[in-house]
Amino acid sequence: MKKIALSILLLTSIVHSQSNDQKMLADIYKFSLTQSSCYSWLDYLSNKIGHRMSGSVGAEKGVVYTKQQLEALGVDKVYLQEVMVPKWVRGEKETAYILDKKTKTNVPICALGGSIATGKNGLTAEIIEVQSIKELESLDPSKVKGKIVFYNRPMEPENINTFRSYGRCVDQRFSGAEKAAKMGAVGAIVRSMTLRLDDFPHTGMQSYGDLPKDKYIPTAAISTNGAELLSKKLKQDSSLKFHFKMSCEMQQDVLSYNVVGEIAGSEHPEKIMVVGGHLDSWDLADGSHDDGAGVVQSMEVLQIFKRLNYKPKNTIRAVLFMNEEFGGKGGKKYEELSKQNKENHIFSLESDCGGFSPRGFSFQCDANNFQKVMNWKYLFEPYLVHNFVLGGTGSDTSHLTSAKIVKAGLSPDSQRYFDYHHAGNDRFDAVNKRELELGAASMASLIYLFDQYGID
Amino acid sequence: MKKIALSILLLTSIVHSQSNDQKMLADIYKFSLTQSSCYSWLDYLSNKIGHRMSGSVGAEKGVVYTKQQLEALGVDKVYLQEVMVPKWVRGEKETAYILDKKTKTNVPICALGGSIATGKNGLTAEIIEVQSIKELESLDPSKVKGKIVFYNRPMEPENINTFRSYGRCVDQRFSGAEKAAKMGAVGAIVRSMTLRLDDFPHTGMQSYGDLPKDKYIPTAAISTNGAELLSKKLKQDSSLKFHFKMSCEMQQDVLSYNVVGEIAGSEHPEKIMVVGGHLDSWDLADGSHDDGAGVVQSMEVLQIFKRLNYKPKNTIRAVLFMNEEFGGKGGKKYEELSKQNKENHIFSLESDCGGFSPRGFSFQCDANNFQKVMNWKYLFEPYLVHNFVLGGTGSDTSHLTSAKIVKAGLSPDSQRYFDYHHAGNDRFDAVNKRELELGAASMASLIYLFDQYGID
Repeated sequence: MKKIALSILLLTSIVHSQSNDQKMLADIYKFSLTQSSCYSWLDYLSNKIGHRMSGSVGAEKGVVYTKQQLEALGVDKVYLQEVMVPKWVRGEKETAYILDKKTKTNVPICALGGSIATGKNGLTAEIIEVQSIKELESLDPSKVKGKIVFYNRPMEPENINTFRSYGRCVDQRFSGAEKAAKMGAVGAIVRSMTLRLDDFPHTGMQSYGDLPKDKYIPTAAISTNGAELLSKKLKQDSSLKFHFKMSCEMQQDVLSYNVVGEIAGSEHPEKIMVVGGHLDSWDLADGSHDDGAGVVQSMEVLQIFKRLNYKPKNTIRAVLFMNEEFGGKGGKKYEELSKQNKENHIFSLESDCGGFSPRGFSFQCDANNFQKVMNWKYLFEPYLVHNFVLGGTGSDTSHLTSAKIVKAGLSPDSQRYFDYHHAGNDRFDAVNKRELELGAASMASLIYLFDQYGID
Repeated sequence: MKKIALSILLLTSIVHSQSNDQKMLADIYKFSLTQSSCYSWLDYLSNKIGHRMSGSVGAEKGVVYTKQQLEALGVDKVYLQEVMVPKWVRGEKETAYILDKKTKTNVPICALGGSIATGKNGLTAEIIEVQSIKELESLDPSKVKGKIVFYNRPMEPENINTFRSYGRCVDQRFSGAEKAAKMGAVGAIVRSMTLRLDDFPHTGMQSYGDLPKDKYIPTAAISTNGAELLSKKLKQDSSLKFHFKMSCEMQQDVLSYNVVGEIAGSEHPEKIMVVGGHLDSWDLADGSHDDGAGVVQSMEVLQIFKRLNYKPKNTIRAVLFMNEEFGGKGGKKYEELSKQNKENHIFSLESDCGGFSPRGFSFQCDANNFQKVMNWKYLFEPYLVHNFVLGGTGSDTSHLTSAKIVKAGLSPDSQRYFDYHHAGNDRFDAVNKRELELGAASMASLIYLFDQYGID
């Protein structure tokens, strides 16, 4: 009889906390869809400030603005973390054309991040198309020497998760120039990382690896329509020439900042839960999806808890990382300072996959904690957040090393992400207010649950 | 021992059919994402033909084009079903302004479908704002007489499913003019049915109900920004005047068509599975989401089965319904002919909620069949199609009356749908190719499963 009474008590308490959780999630989603500021913050970041490339005036304005807005929320602490970041500037808009016997056809290109410039008069050379680095490396170097290498393997359309397609393609952009230079090429052109056929070139980080500086070659992305045209023309005339001109350059590192706002934990202020996105962007547009969305959603998480008068047990810290796109210095600096201060992170949640309808979360944790999360899944179903998987969670929080941390990443619908990624159309009008708000609510909900129930 | 052997045999056969189903769905999604035609069909419908308002030249061109394309697929039968449809024409672009003491402020409006015109010089009158029909009807008629009624209740942002918000708001548009006329009003203006604040007025069907014709009053939708402005100005000056001018008119019914294409069943040709969308659209844009998407997805279902060389057991019929937006004559005619021909429909699937990422399906069926469907849910999870619910399934197939039919509707992500619904921005560039293709694949997959396992 005692046993039964105890069981009933236990059951009652479980049911009670379940209905509390349901109510809290309902409150979070309702607040976010009706009273949140994330969309207007993004409007300001995107339309008043514009791009926030590492080391740019926009990045510094972004720091000042987000710090002010966090302060206005009345959270417990708002501060900056100094970090030196690389500064690379694009210079004049790039030009390029295909020189096909006597016809010049302009094609849209953009320098890849970190590329050196061409000479003042640009670079003109024969071009050789390959589908992969492997194919390039199988060629006789005499076929590559003095030419521009054109990497043209498209992203695979058949994957449901477009990040998978990106992951299986982006080596061409990241290491294409290095590998081409090692084969004696004078330049490298890469098909843009997008599943669409359009006229936007998509920039992104590239690395010369261990090449000595005097072996660097200029490298650019070409729009997918441009790539299709170039490939077609090469089939007709393999000796055609390609010309491109870029004046980008790497400058001195400059001082910049991570922006941090936090609500102190009421029971375990020493246990830290991080929610973050990155404040820097590429320079071709205003970076509304990448990663203005993650920035304003992380800020919104703090606002939601403040406005719902929720007192977290653990410290909740929103971190707006600097320089994710171009070296990840902000993420590394954050972890460095965290180690110095002997901080204990129990949970991190990163939003860096765009401001689209949230579909789920990706987790990096052990089996016990993943089981725990799976037990919360039903709470998210009314909000159509269904997809809880083990996988990558984000690049800025990847540096965190606390012993028992659970890491998570928001997984929005990925179908449209690479339409805009690092391109001139990643603008405010590509973000839907409700989708952005639903993402912020999903993030706050997951943090609430980890705050309530801790990690194993 | 025999029992065990039998169990093993049964288990083997279940596992075998499961892996067959998984393979078939994988083939369907892969085909759709790599080789489908739905996006290029939509491009043609939207950009070469344009709007397909019932009774318009565009609607007739849509009939001819889709019939040709279905014939080109080499399906077993393609034919038209004659149907008389109402024809309403908008005439000149509508104009409206707020006359606030001596200031005229233009605001964007559009006539609601079926409205009568104002006089040649437009209609100018005082305006009274209400939040609902109920509020209107509680007023003293002397306060309404001679005025324009302005319905300004917004769609509720807090619902996750935006169709719910629409359903709770659209009575203002559908019956607003009728109710206002009964109170002595001379016109009715309705806040546009969208969750955004922008400058697009959203049209849609309205009905004068049982009003005698000489009591009809002109009625229009105003953009949400316009509605906000009007409401604000009314608070400052309740005697301001509103002016609007429209030259729309109802004309004679005209002959139009449903377009039907079918693959005959190999085992049960008499059992019919319908997949459909509606070919007509509103006239303010090209109706790419509403319902160009559903049309080309339904056509794609046939193409997928043909190209994968799948021979359905039952007859699969794609029906492109005419006149969903303005009377639903095509859907009714289809059912009428079906009854005449003593046809037996076992399954219907309608796509009329936009070409966005598919999130699930809505079903109208008994508990047994719903249980069956829920057992297939796991097959859709790799494609992030999770949300299987009982609920409304679509207006064209709502007329079907076969005794044991299971009805379903595709449920795409609904967050952006009302950004475009019945408005001037429902254009091709608002549709993402992959999202459209994923919807078509989800539809083909569900039909495949019902074809394989029948209904209870």
